[in-house]
Amino acid sequence: MATAVPRGERGRPDGAGTGALGEDQLVGLLRTLLSGPAPGVALGAGDDAALVQIGSHLIVLTADMLVDGVHFERERVSAHDLGHKALTVNVSDVAAMGGSPRFALVSLGLPDDVASNWMVELYGGLRDAAAEYAVAVVGGDTTRADRVVISVALTGEVAAGRAVTRAGARPGDRVCVTGSLGAAAGGLWLSHASPAEVASALSAEWGRELLAALDRPVARVGEGQTLAAAGATAMMDVSDGLALDLSRLCRESGVGAAVRPADVPVAASLHGLERQAGVRPLDLALGGGDDYELLATLPSGAVDGVAAQLRERFGTPLTEIGEVRLEPGLVAVEADGSERPLEPAGWDPFGG
Amino acid sequence: MATAVPRGERGRPDGAGTGALGEDQLVGLLRTLLSGPAPGVALGAGDDAALVQIGSHLIVLTADMLVDGVHFERERVSAHDLGHKALTVNVSDVAAMGGSPRFALVSLGLPDDVASNWMVELYGGLRDAAAEYAVAVVGGDTTRADRVVISVALTGEVAAGRAVTRAGARPGDRVCVTGSLGAAAGGLWLSHASPAEVASALSAEWGRELLAALDRPVARVGEGQTLAAAGATAMMDVSDGLALDLSRLCRESGVGAAVRPADVPVAASLHGLERQAGVRPLDLALGGGDDYELLATLPSGAVDGVAAQLRERFGTPLTEIGEVRLEPGLVAVEADGSERPLEPAGWDPFGG
Repeated sequence: MATAVPRGERGRPDGAGTGALGEDQLVGLLRTLLSGPAPGVALGAGDDAALVQIGSHLIVLTADMLVDGVHFERERVSAHDLGHKALTVNVSDVAAMGGSPRFALVSLGLPDDVASNWMVELYGGLRDAAAEYAVAVVGGDTTRADRVVISVALTGEVAAGRAVTRAGARPGDRVCVTGSLGAAAGGLWLSHASPAEVASALSAEWGRELLAALDRPVARVGEGQTLAAAGATAMMDVSDGLALDLSRLCRESGVGAAVRPADVPVAASLHGLERQAGVRPLDLALGGGDDYELLATLPSGAVDGVAAQLRERFGTPLTEIGEVRLEPGLVAVEADGSERPLEPAGWDPFGG
Repeated sequence: MATAVPRGERGRPDGAGTGALGEDQLVGLLRTLLSGPAPGVALGAGDDAALVQIGSHLIVLTADMLVDGVHFERERVSAHDLGHKALTVNVSDVAAMGGSPRFALVSLGLPDDVASNWMVELYGGLRDAAAEYAVAVVGGDTTRADRVVISVALTGEVAAGRAVTRAGARPGDRVCVTGSLGAAAGGLWLSHASPAEVASALSAEWGRELLAALDRPVARVGEGQTLAAAGATAMMDVSDGLALDLSRLCRESGVGAAVRPADVPVAASLHGLERQAGVRPLDLALGGGDDYELLATLPSGAVDGVAAQLRERFGTPLTEIGEVRLEPGLVAVEADGSERPLEPAGWDPFGG
């Protein structure tokens, strides 16, 4: 649901404010207050997206709000990349349900000092992402605000019986993830490094790759549909960090999971950052947000087949990183077979 | 699309900033950058809502963003009323297309100092409005922000052939408006008056009515469907002021209009404000926003019949206030038959 700024940058490292509620608590409050069966609602708040029925069509509805200083820094990111990302993160939520994105509404809050060419670039990024994902931007709202706020709502479709929520994982299922993890968190780390470190990193391919991962994420639409068709039992996108997001998936499914850290696919470009700054790639892969890879649970017999499909169709790897257990909670299983609790840490926009 | 704070309160009376673009210019930019036929899009940006096709269903999509200090003042309005209004203004956009609201996404930006009981009240207002208009709130996003930002996206349905846009008004059609106008602008005026004036006004029925009109607007859903069924050629809600909104409807239809100011239905409670403070009711009715009445053009032969239907079914008056002309622009026709240009002034969130 959210994109990342490191905790120290958020001005609220202690979780104070908003009655000390974090994002998960607020989502819980929303679900309690607004829940109850309603006509046409197949799945309400709390997943990557909602599912509603219109006639015989299953519709996917999702929204994300990006705020300057919380999810991005206007001084650093290009307006084009920002527009592109604002749409892409919503597309990713639809992808995580196994759906196809169709129509977007874009609401913008704009401070007085935003120049019109910045707006033109932002819309250019939105337009490029819309073309890439076959989305039509059909409207929205514009208003004045103290800081740039970009609120996107996306409508998609999913074939009946093909929607995958967070709630279907069963003990014994395999935990799998597309692509590699941690590069966006590496880019975020770099974006806050010293000018000398940044300059040095950007002279290397790995440095440019890390920043590109942060600013120009890719939503896995075809991959999500393929995983859904292959019988994924639960699915979500990794937007707030693998450990936190997997803990959410497990909570919704009423299960736990064991993860083999040695098998987590760490972005290759992170090794450059490790060499330069000593940052551990696995920490970024487990705890960093903004990857937008898909996290899915699959019956054990389905993994090899769908992995081959994803490789052939999209060039996207699928890696098995653990398995679903009956017992709640996350554990890390080391190479020697020893187990330890895996902290569900990750990005929370309230820093709670 | 937007709700009102008086010009002097917006801190930007000169239209500076955002490259000096006003809301209409930004909407124009959006339409230029994102336009072009797209599969399934029946009507894109620029109307009260977009119309898209999913299977044989015509879907209405709309979004509005409300920002503290621009559209409301958090110190003054109750969280419950704010939540109720945030949904209602979106319902009004669906009503203005002749549609039925169905599913809402609510994204919230929240400062650190928002207490959790404020959140509970806000959601209570959302829930009450959702129940009133048979809308299911199915999700959204929550994040940190400097000021409260409420961004709602609403999905509705409209029967095929029954959607009414701003673009169909024809010369000779009658210009009609539901209910009465100006009360919300009167409430806004009051909300910025001196404590003595406010206390005096609130001791009277008219004062309480004006503030209620501002804080608890009503969306005309049944009325919109009835007007659509009766053959309304163009329709929109009066959110930014009658004169400005009618000028927009005329521009989209490629026509002009003549309005008889003497026939504009002015809210009765404004006469109390006129007596107390000398504010002219007609000025508020023509130039004030936030009324959420429906402005419709109808073939002349249809007016009496639909007016009777609205009165019987909903107790809502429909008043004919003028007629559509071939010549672009708005004119006011006085009782003696003299004409003068009618300035399309009203609320612009950029103060442009």
